[in-house]
Order: sequence, then structure tokens, then C-alpha cells
Amino acid sequence: MSERTEISTLGEFGLIDHLTKNIELQNVSSIVGVGDDAAVIDHFGKQTVVTTDMLVEGVHFDLMYTPLRHLGYKSIVVNLSDIYAMNATPTQVTISIALSNKFSVEALDEFYEGVYAACAKYGVDLIGGDTTSSQKGFVISVTALGEISPGKYVKRSTAQQGDLLCVSGDLGAAFLGLTFLEREKKIFLENPQVQPDLEGEKYVIGRILKPEARKDIVEFFEKSALQPTAMMDVSDGLSSEILHICKQSNLGCVLYEDKIPIHEDTKNAAFKFQLDPTACALSGGEDYELVFTIAQADYEKLVLNEQISVIGYMTEPEKGKKIITKGGNTFDITAQGWNAFS
Amino acid sequence: MSERTEISTLGEFGLIDHLTKNIELQNVSSIVGVGDDAAVIDHFGKQTVVTTDMLVEGVHFDLMYTPLRHLGYKSIVVNLSDIYAMNATPTQVTISIALSNKFSVEALDEFYEGVYAACAKYGVDLIGGDTTSSQKGFVISVTALGEISPGKYVKRSTAQQGDLLCVSGDLGAAFLGLTFLEREKKIFLENPQVQPDLEGEKYVIGRILKPEARKDIVEFFEKSALQPTAMMDVSDGLSSEILHICKQSNLGCVLYEDKIPIHEDTKNAAFKFQLDPTACALSGGEDYELVFTIAQADYEKLVLNEQISVIGYMTEPEKGKKIITKGGNTFDITAQGWNAFS
Repeated sequence: MSERTEISTLGEFGLIDHLTKNIELQNVSSIVGVGDDAAVIDHFGKQTVVTTDMLVEGVHFDLMYTPLRHLGYKSIVVNLSDIYAMNATPTQVTISIALSNKFSVEALDEFYEGVYAACAKYGVDLIGGDTTSSQKGFVISVTALGEISPGKYVKRSTAQQGDLLCVSGDLGAAFLGLTFLEREKKIFLENPQVQPDLEGEKYVIGRILKPEARKDIVEFFEKSALQPTAMMDVSDGLSSEILHICKQSNLGCVLYEDKIPIHEDTKNAAFKFQLDPTACALSGGEDYELVFTIAQADYEKLVLNEQISVIGYMTEPEKGKKIITKGGNTFDITAQGWNAFS
Repeated sequence: MSERTEISTLGEFGLIDHLTKNIELQNVSSIVGVGDDAAVIDHFGKQTVVTTDMLVEGVHFDLMYTPLRHLGYKSIVVNLSDIYAMNATPTQVTISIALSNKFSVEALDEFYEGVYAACAKYGVDLIGGDTTSSQKGFVISVTALGEISPGKYVKRSTAQQGDLLCVSGDLGAAFLGLTFLEREKKIFLENPQVQPDLEGEKYVIGRILKPEARKDIVEFFEKSALQPTAMMDVSDGLSSEILHICKQSNLGCVLYEDKIPIHEDTKNAAFKFQLDPTACALSGGEDYELVFTIAQADYEKLVLNEQISVIGYMTEPEKGKKIITKGGNTFDITAQGWNAFS
């Protein structure tokens, strides 16, 4: 039998001590960490990049099929992804959680194991936070800080006409992983004897439960002296993100369906659910890949990285935001993928 | 009749635009604000101070007697108070909220009015955040950033033996304001015809619903070339905060009951509830005053500020943490005030 320690036995300050006692600060920029009114950081002449994201039980995650360790990991990673999307290096995080007394200290430890695993993997320091009770449900709020050389950050609004439109990794898997878990949950609720067979879906499930942020891509830019002209991460779905870049940069674009990178396991999962893999990639979201634009002159440097796909290019705004399908038809891109009736 | 617009009619991005459309960045350090993956700040050689706090409906606030405008204001102020408690100047905030669909756009606007009022008063920029739905209740998470000249920050752990123990403003009022509001709520729930008479309790109610952070004290330190040796803000109650400073600085202290500043209205409210005003000041919390230690040599500069009270001094650790009462008795300070049975 597993142990259960009530959070109330530790008290607020005891709990904070328990959760933070093993922290060793990794970054020279972390001057003061957990344990005071505020933390102090010094990026020594670099600029500081800040982002924040909130995850709510029942809205962003379902504890029925989300291991707490993975949830802790993901809470950090989705924020780091936003820092990388500015072309910056994450250095610190704060994490605040509100949770009901249905959680034990052991459950919280599992969650924090994931938090610390993500911090270790990405080399960031946990420097602060807040732990409080909630009447119902689990709410997580993370703020991530990063650093960048002055002026090297990449916004969404600065793409140029003629730039190549690119994306890292592959798309659509997280959405199919979620679809699969939701189906298994439904089956389980109807018949708790049935155990789910996750074997063939490892890739897509891993993409939703334990996403990674594209540290490697930002490091590749640095090493190759590449500066994207615009960039953001794929949290809502490729088409939604592309529309943001077009709108904020006041440009149009052409996207080629056959260039959109989709993993074989994602395609197989889509076929099982009778879904179109392209639609999953365009509208699925939560892939945490980087979508970016880059000058055509940089093409030769770019193709050295197999993790980057060129999927289209930026046009003058009057040309609209278009996708050219495998069949050669042209449609308007919409936030839901594309609208075949426009 | 007041208007009611459902949040769903705006959509996520429409809502963000609606809530942030009037932002004008005030600080030169705010390089990139709302609207990208992350914000960019540059403190130009200064160090960055970061703090975060979460406020949960039903735990930290009760919407039955908390106007949304005040709640928005307070959410910002309690975080700025932590920045001041480091001797730093707040410059930016991010705010994330999760709320159920019982809130209309108009209700959210009221909340943000308070947020922006606090930002304007304290000269900070709102540079990011997240807005999401919750299954139940309202959860607010704020992160505040500030700046300070390298090495000028003040921790809790650096008080020195012989230092004066000081506090700003007055204590205990917020607790009595809360006690009063809780009583009126109970009366109202039992008999909705009875309207509360808040007239005589304006001061204590104002202290709980619309606290202020002690910007003026930190500015006074700067102007007077005063550097506290340790400092924190009073959120849990004076005795709890003093014990933190003693523990983290490895010192004892002597606190004089008759030196603890308590407002006349606070004393009157305490007597109405048959409470001891000193106990309210020691254990009440939420006053958001600054408690700090400072070298005896700085005493003459210090007394020029009527908003600062010297309430005791720091001793060697073996002397313990003591309070000397008005009657001349000496007790151990405990997190709950003092323990007369020790």
C-alpha cells in the first residue's frame, strides 16, 4: 500500500520547505532563489524574456489519464516553449499551484518530480512560487523567464514578404494522443474491466502527455548565425499560428499541404479514427513545435537541419492566406484548418 | 438594467484584445508587451526582482463582499508589496486568471479596471498573462517584476545583532475589516433585509479590501540613503514575519507591545468584537506593511519619517524571541501572537 501524508500535517511553511529543500541553483543569473519575498536575477546586460501560462484541471488536463509527474513536466515545458519562441534561452521559472485536500504530500511530490525533471533537462532554476488550497480542482500557474542578447528576440509581427515559412519537428500527434486517451477514458467509464492497449499509440500519447520544447532549434539558430524574421510556438494549431503571423506582420502566405511534416504513427492513428492527418496538423494544437519565417538567403543553412521543414512562403497581404492541397486546389486557411466553402 | 455580454461571444483572442487594447507602456524597461509568445524587458544594468502570488476564490477572497474592482486592485498590490519588501521598484506585472462562465465581460472589465488602476498608481506595466476558463471559482495568479541596483536588494536573512526592529504604518486593521465583513455576511445570509452599516468601519474595511503597498517607504530609504539590513512585508501577521527574520538571520529579538502601531479605528473595532488589538496586530496579517531591521546608527535618519515605528531590537539567538507586554511581562513570540504558557 502506498503511503498517504496529509498536506495539513506539514503546514504551509513546512510544505514549501519540503518541496524546495533539494533545489540547487544552476544559473549564475539566479542571484536569490526561493525563500524570500521575491527572487533576484541578473541577466548581466542581456534582456529578460517573460511569459506565463495557466493550466486548469478539467479544462487543460484530466487527471484520470494524466500522471502527475507528466503534468508537472508539461507545466514547465509549455512555458519554456514560449521563451524559445522568442529565440531566447530560458533561465528561471516560478510555479504557483492551488489544490484541494484530495491531494496528499506524496501526490504533490510526484508532481514536483516532473517539475524538477523539466528544470534539470532544460537547465532552468525554480526560484519562487506559491502553494495554496482550492475548493475544487487543481490549478497551476507558471511564469518562465529567459535571457537574450539585446535586440535578438523574434516577434510575430516582423515577417517579410518572400520569407520562407518553416516548422520544426512534426505536427498533429498531440491532438491524436488526446483523442485516443479520451476514447479510452470513455470505454473505461462504461466498462472498468477493459484495460486500454496503448502499445501502438506510444508516440502520439507521449506527445500530449509529455511534450518537449524545441531547445535544439534555438541552439541551431545560434550556432548557424540564423535569425528568423518571425516566430511563435504551435500551441493552438498550425493554421491558427500562421494566421497570427500573417495578421501581425500584415502579410499573406502560401502553405503547401504536402510539405506539412506528419509522423507515420500520427497518420496511422488518424486513419484509425477516420480523421484527415492534415486537418489534425492544422487544427490540433499542443505540438509545441516552432513555426517561423526566415529570409530566402538563409535556405542553404536551414536545410542542414533535418528537424526543420519549409512548408510555404510569405506573400503580399492582398494574396490572402492560402493552402495548396495535395490535389492542387487552393483554399483559404482558417483557424479551423481551411474553409473549403469560401 | 446592466448589460451582460457573454465572454464566449468574444472568443479567446477577442477577449485578450478587449482587455488589453488601452495599454500604454510606461516604463522604458518594457521593450515588448502583451501580444507575443513572451514579453521582453531590459533593466539596463539593474537586477531584476521577481515574485508571484495566487489568489483563490473561497480561500483568499469572498465575492459576496469583495467588489471585483477592489479585487483586481488588490491582486496587483499584494505582489508589488513583495517587490518593495526586497527594497526594489516594481516595473512590470503579468496576470493570469481562470474563471467560470458565471462572469460576464462587464464583470471582467470591472476586475481589470482595478488591475489598471493599481498599475497606473504604482507606475507598472501589464506585459502579459493568460485568460482561461475554470469549472468552478475564480483563480488569479500575478507575477510582478521589479528592478534594483546590483546588490542593493534586502533579504530576510541578513539582520544583525543590535539592529533596530521597525515597522511601517499600522497593524491589525485588515484582520478586523475581514472579521467585520464576515459578521455582516452571516447576518445578511440569516436575514437579507438587514443592510450593513459600514460607516464606522471604513478604515478597517478599506485595509482589507483595498490595501496599498509601501512605495513611499522604499522611496524614503532611497532618498535618505538608508539601507535596511533585513526586510519583509506583513502578509501573515507581525509575529510570523518577525519569526521568519529571526530564524533566517539566526537571531533573537525583543519586541515591545506598547510600541506596536495600531490605528484608533482598529482599536475601536477590536473592542467591539471583544478582541485584543495587540493580538490582531501580531496575528492578523494582510496589512502589507514593511517590517525591517536597520543599524542603530541610522536611528536619527529613521525618526524623520512618522510612518515608521521602532518596535524592538535584534538580540543574540540564545536570548530567544521575546515580547515585553504593557504590563512588563516577558513572553515568547509564537506565530499565533505569543504563548503565555511557554
